[in-house]
Amino acid sequence: MRIGIMTSGGDGPGLNAVIRGAVRKGVRVHGAEFTGIRDGWRGLLEDELFDLPTTAVRGISGRGGTILGTSRTHPYSGGGPARMREVMAARGLDAVIAIGGEGTLAGAARLAEEEGLPVVGVPKTIDNDLGGTDYTFGFDTAAAIATESIDRLRTTAESHHRCMVVEVMGRHVGWIALHAGMAAGAHAVLIPEFPVSTEKICEWVRSARDRGRAPIVVVAEGFVPEDRDEAVAVHGIGADGRPRLGGIADEIAPLIEERTGVETRSAVLGHLQRGGSPTAYDRVLSTRLGMAASDLAVEGAWGQMASLHGTDIVRVRMADAVDRLKRVPLSRWEEMQVLLG
Amino acid sequence: MRIGIMTSGGDGPGLNAVIRGAVRKGVRVHGAEFTGIRDGWRGLLEDELFDLPTTAVRGISGRGGTILGTSRTHPYSGGGPARMREVMAARGLDAVIAIGGEGTLAGAARLAEEEGLPVVGVPKTIDNDLGGTDYTFGFDTAAAIATESIDRLRTTAESHHRCMVVEVMGRHVGWIALHAGMAAGAHAVLIPEFPVSTEKICEWVRSARDRGRAPIVVVAEGFVPEDRDEAVAVHGIGADGRPRLGGIADEIAPLIEERTGVETRSAVLGHLQRGGSPTAYDRVLSTRLGMAASDLAVEGAWGQMASLHGTDIVRVRMADAVDRLKRVPLSRWEEMQVLLG
Amino acid sequence: MRIGIMTSGGDGPGLNAVIRGAVRKGVRVHGAEFTGIRDGWRGLLEDELFDLPTTAVRGISGRGGTILGTSRTHPYSGGGPARMREVMAARGLDAVIAIGGEGTLAGAARLAEEEGLPVVGVPKTIDNDLGGTDYTFGFDTAAAIATESIDRLRTTAESHHRCMVVEVMGRHVGWIALHAGMAAGAHAVLIPEFPVSTEKICEWVRSARDRGRAPIVVVAEGFVPEDRDEAVAVHGIGADGRPRLGGIADEIAPLIEERTGVETRSAVLGHLQRGGSPTAYDRVLSTRLGMAASDLAVEGAWGQMASLHGTDIVRVRMADAVDRLKRVPLSRWEEMQVLLG
Amino acid sequence: MRIGIMTSGGDGPGLNAVIRGAVRKGVRVHGAEFTGIRDGWRGLLEDELFDLPTTAVRGISGRGGTILGTSRTHPYSGGGPARMREVMAARGLDAVIAIGGEGTLAGAARLAEEEGLPVVGVPKTIDNDLGGTDYTFGFDTAAAIATESIDRLRTTAESHHRCMVVEVMGRHVGWIALHAGMAAGAHAVLIPEFPVSTEKICEWVRSARDRGRAPIVVVAEGFVPEDRDEAVAVHGIGADGRPRLGGIADEIAPLIEERTGVETRSAVLGHLQRGGSPTAYDRVLSTRLGMAASDLAVEGAWGQMASLHGTDIVRVRMADAVDRLKRVPLSRWEEMQVLLG
Repeated sequence: MRIGIMTSGGDGPGLNAVIRGAVRKGVRVHGAEFTGIRDGWRGLLEDELFDLPTTAVRGISGRGGTILGTSRTHPYSGGGPARMREVMAARGLDAVIAIGGEGTLAGAARLAEEEGLPVVGVPKTIDNDLGGTDYTFGFDTAAAIATESIDRLRTTAESHHRCMVVEVMGRHVGWIALHAGMAAGAHAVLIPEFPVSTEKICEWVRSARDRGRAPIVVVAEGFVPEDRDEAVAVHGIGADGRPRLGGIADEIAPLIEERTGVETRSAVLGHLQRGGSPTAYDRVLSTRLGMAASDLAVEGAWGQMASLHGTDIVRVRMADAVDRLKRVPLSRWEEMQVLLG
Repeated sequence: MRIGIMTSGGDGPGLNAVIRGAVRKGVRVHGAEFTGIRDGWRGLLEDELFDLPTTAVRGISGRGGTILGTSRTHPYSGGGPARMREVMAARGLDAVIAIGGEGTLAGAARLAEEEGLPVVGVPKTIDNDLGGTDYTFGFDTAAAIATESIDRLRTTAESHHRCMVVEVMGRHVGWIALHAGMAAGAHAVLIPEFPVSTEKICEWVRSARDRGRAPIVVVAEGFVPEDRDEAVAVHGIGADGRPRLGGIADEIAPLIEERTGVETRSAVLGHLQRGGSPTAYDRVLSTRLGMAASDLAVEGAWGQMASLHGTDIVRVRMADAVDRLKRVPLSRWEEMQVLLG
Repeated sequence: MRIGIMTSGGDGPGLNAVIRGAVRKGVRVHGAEFTGIRDGWRGLLEDELFDLPTTAVRGISGRGGTILGTSRTHPYSGGGPARMREVMAARGLDAVIAIGGEGTLAGAARLAEEEGLPVVGVPKTIDNDLGGTDYTFGFDTAAAIATESIDRLRTTAESHHRCMVVEVMGRHVGWIALHAGMAAGAHAVLIPEFPVSTEKICEWVRSARDRGRAPIVVVAEGFVPEDRDEAVAVHGIGADGRPRLGGIADEIAPLIEERTGVETRSAVLGHLQRGGSPTAYDRVLSTRLGMAASDLAVEGAWGQMASLHGTDIVRVRMADAVDRLKRVPLSRWEEMQVLLG
Repeated sequence: MRIGIMTSGGDGPGLNAVIRGAVRKGVRVHGAEFTGIRDGWRGLLEDELFDLPTTAVRGISGRGGTILGTSRTHPYSGGGPARMREVMAARGLDAVIAIGGEGTLAGAARLAEEEGLPVVGVPKTIDNDLGGTDYTFGFDTAAAIATESIDRLRTTAESHHRCMVVEVMGRHVGWIALHAGMAAGAHAVLIPEFPVSTEKICEWVRSARDRGRAPIVVVAEGFVPEDRDEAVAVHGIGADGRPRLGGIADEIAPLIEERTGVETRSAVLGHLQRGGSPTAYDRVLSTRLGMAASDLAVEGAWGQMASLHGTDIVRVRMADAVDRLKRVPLSRWEEMQVLLG
């Protein structure tokens, strides 16, 4: 049996550990052989494949990024399923393991269920916004980097009696902001799921300042203040009506300074959160998911993905996982609010 | 309402975040006041108590150790429950939150269920060997430190073409060895639950060496090779019949070198694994557990503890959690073995 | 003898270690007492002073920021030298240790030499742009954080076959860019001292891309491309003639993408570089400088500062140190260029 | 011109950066070609050589260990200089860059000066005990790891009110103990150059304990208490007259506990200090030394080595550098003592 493996969409810490886990299990236990697919669906559509023996995956579980490369190529572009079937036949691929986020898995689900292609999946999203799994790998690393960064920023904020607004990833959901904000002891946490007004943010800032603290505001990139026109805000129009060049942190910081009188600075963590060596937690999760994906491929469980449930790795139908965003629930938001201000 | 709070037994990363979470929730939401109890049960027996306002817990969630101090004093020593009742009455304590491991929680369960004392708990064990909870805080940090240490040791092992035996915590269970071994890509993982023979260890080492790798062996401190007399081994008698001065790593390393011809060194991580700033994962878990413990105290849920189930914080009867060790199950061991050698 | 101590200007890692070193040496060896001055010159002008016993400085050498607070208040504002003399007399201050950058030390030099005030100094600049000392504390930490960040960013750049432009501190000099660029193996390093053209930058990027690398460009915030109107650039006017909202990295990245066809992203490290725990190197340097400053104060070496020469801590006249910026010399730039492209 | 390059003796962080610096400069500027020599002198004596193009050194400056491998083979063993000359001629090597410690450089100096072999050197010793250079690469990383470890150990010591004895590298000199002890705020620092009595150690411990601190003792592995028979101690005979199995920390810890009544634990950092990614400082220093070594080889400066003087890379006669150990001078010891107790 020959299994193709690819990483697709934005990269994240843990991809290499998934690859290694899949190859090690597939080769050693199932006697399979592996083919690396270059840059996601693009490699499959353009026939950029290469042999992937176990020697190619040794020592990579602690390395960030993906040895396979990645791209945002859509599976229905450039020939689509028909072309994939052709390439897979020509190269003797009996299965494909697709590691990716919502878009990738939606594509993989459709390929498996509608086109009958032998595809299984592993969920990947740093934002942790995928359903069907307790956590996705990469999220723990991103939250850890954000936490460590906030720890650093706090000392300089305190020395200057400043407020610091730190923007973390999370276009649609606030998981990283929630976890990093709780871990680092933030005074305000702003997430897309629960918009608050600029005045509420300032209240939290004043409360912290009045207790002698340097107020720390953690904001997910997709947050929009309640009192802003969302339609405008999400299209990158700043509060002044002109195109917004920085992130939401750069927009909120001057508002806070103006209303509270507390000198305020912003920091946008950006790509830092998706790079570098994964945490031990993510390496373990990734390795286990990779091994389970090999099992799925060998069993022919097309359309299924490996996912985390409690401490177990289970299988879930991909189509079920991608039909809704996993948002921060109200209970977690209420829990967080107790610590703010 | 006045709530006493204590940390008991070995310290671990996350204790301060539990304390902060409990105090913040208790004061802000429940209007309670807090009393710090010095050094575990000792403080309660010897009336070493002090006021613990929210200002005393600010900024501590990222700090290792415990601001309350800890000791291994047994709750039934020095006056026992009667004395505690006396002190609690004199100081106006309506509840006690006991943060500790198997011994502490067993004591707390007995105090609550047999003596009728108003005690609730938070489980703490770096080894992750407590039942009733998916993970305990401190474990993720310990596994992270062990993983980072093995990453470091690997480069020197490779330069010298050596085998490195790394001893991690785990007197009765192999969770840290399992996770760090998987995260760091170890070639042999040795845990108390599944003893293997010295020959089997050497097989793994030879297999790695033959593929050009520097063999990495991760061993839990409580591991005993299958071919050793356990009764002797656990009492610290070395393979030569004399008292063993180093750990199990120091004993295994020369055996590996002798049998495989691979130069072998050992490293004992020891206390490093329990010190320092907790990971973001542990800070979030700890904070949530602390907040939940405050709820338990306010509700009078005596004998209950806060614990992790999936992504939820739930309540569990302490007496149920402490009656059995949470060992690494066979499924996890089989999963691990695929990656060894 | 009573010695006042202050931190002034931008904060940086190592300030607390200087304070601790000065207080420990002053109290233990010289029998002096210490007074903390709040927020730099402001505290001295507004009489915000507080007792600073050794217990106040214990355990702080590993903590970022400054326990004294800092501000950019000018010593000749609000009453100036006359007011300082008044406050110092009223509070019994026999000397002041001023820890700060070019501005602070220039002020301190003038106070000592022109006004006859008993002031000594410790040089502080994360940018390492001060003369009279081999290195300033804080610089090593900033270079370390920048290096670690670039290591992280590289993995995500490689996965996406992108170019990454990383902006580091350095308004007037390129020391951080030089060291972090060399340490992290950057393909282009852009520093204010040696402007290069946009085309030269693109040559380096293409060269790296052609060898299959993800091009890494490290740029000091004060860099201006040779083919840009500096007068405009330094006033924050973007290449499009409108006010520049991001940093120089945000300006260069699209130019690179446009000219080379390599997808390019930017990251601005900003305040991250000045926060958090100092490196061991900076803690040792800071502690030694602090101790030496105590000696200067006790000896009455007004107008002198402690500085690093080779492995020795020596004394230097402040007025001599601040009269010129320490730029990256041509020899270091030529050395660096060998590694670029 | 073809240049051979080797790493010899114990490995250390920075070796790969030296190799990369030498190859990049040699190839790009001097048009030289490089040959990797496997495992130090052994590779030269046994003709284990391999081509080392620039592609082989890319991306390695941040990686620990050495891609060339290392061994302790003596240059005068197995054929010695005559054999080397033969292999070099056969393989067309015009020069050899030897990267190593005191033993390696002494050998290289003799080969160059007595045998007329074209050898230049780069000094390497984690212990920083080599003359002729301000610092050696690897030392900063080792001191950083030791400092970070002590930071971790302190939190657990404080929670349990314990004394912690931490053993760091330094067989003959106390540089790592001195720097890590100062950086981490140790209460006692014990180095080979300045033996103190067990009673003096206990004084420091009691002093810290009496101020409410958890006493931290940092000891270099080569330290021998003044009141111990050095002849016995250095041969690994414990205080009880039997062979010592642990390090000096394991011997001192129970003595402290016995005499002071403070519960005391020990930790031996061992190989951790020489593994893993070098600090930014060490990467810069290593890269610069490697580049300078290429210059030496091309110029035919046989018998010379590249070394650090202030902020400059200079050249020094190897024979002069290896004739004496660089010990911690009295001035640094006196400076340190101010902070102890």
